[in-house]
Amino acid sequence: MNEVLQSIVEQTPGARAVILMGFDGITVDQYADPDASVEIEALAMEFSFRIAELRAAAQSLDLGDLLDLTLRAERGTLLIRCLDREYFLALFLEDPRHFGKGRWLLRTKGMSLRDQL
Amino acid sequence: MNEVLQSIVEQTPGARAVILMGFDGITVDQYADPDASVEIEALAMEFSFRIAELRAAAQSLDLGDLLDLTLRAERGTLLIRCLDREYFLALFLEDPRHFGKGRWLLRTKGMSLRDQL
Repeated sequence: MNEVLQSIVEQTPGARAVILMGFDGITVDQYADPDASVEIEALAMEFSFRIAELRAAAQSLDLGDLLDLTLRAERGTLLIRCLDREYFLALFLEDPRHFGKGRWLLRTKGMSLRDQL
Repeated sequence: MNEVLQSIVEQTPGARAVILMGFDGITVDQYADPDASVEIEALAMEFSFRIAELRAAAQSLDLGDLLDLTLRAERGTLLIRCLDREYFLALFLEDPRHFGKGRWLLRTKGMSLRDQL
C-alpha cells in the first residue's frame, strides 16, 4: 500500500505528499516527499470532517455521491478523492500545474487501494 | 452584470447556471439556462457557509487565500471562484468534461465582475 502512495507522489510533478484517511480523521497510511513543507496528516484531518459535510450536502441536494474535490489556495492545492463512504485519498501539490495527472492517478490507483481496505 | 453571467454559461459546454453570491448566502445576481435542472441559488446557499469554513481552514493551515474549489459529484459539478473575502461565483455543470473552460472563464470574467461590486 505504501508503494502505491509513493508512486502517486512520484508520478505527479509538483506533488509532495499523499494520505489515505477515514472520514473520522484516522490515518490508514501516508507518504511524503522528503522535501515536503506540509504536514499532510494535519491538513487532511482538518479537512476530513468538512469533506464529510460536503458529501452529505451533495447527497441532500440530489447531486449523488461526491467523487472528488479540488481545493486550490495561494500556497498549495489539495486533491481529494473519495474511495467509498468511509475513506478518502488526499494529495498535496505545491505546484498545481499538473493537477490533472494527480487527479487521474488518484482515481486509477485509488481503485486498487480500495480493494485492499 | 447579468450579460457577463450569461456569457459564462453559454461559453462553457455542459454548464447550466451561474450565480454571484456573498459568503453570507445573499445573491447578487444569477443566470440559468432555460433547460437547467438545478436551483443554483439553493445549491450555492447550501455551500456558501461551508466554503467560508474551508477558506478559514486554508488560512489557518498556512495555505493562504482559497482561490477556487471544484466539487465533482455523480450528477453534477460545481465550480467555485472566490472573488474576494466577501463574494464568490458558483458555476454548475451537468457535464464536467469542459470544466477547465469554465474555471478559466470564472477567473477572467470574475475579475471584471469584482470591479463592479
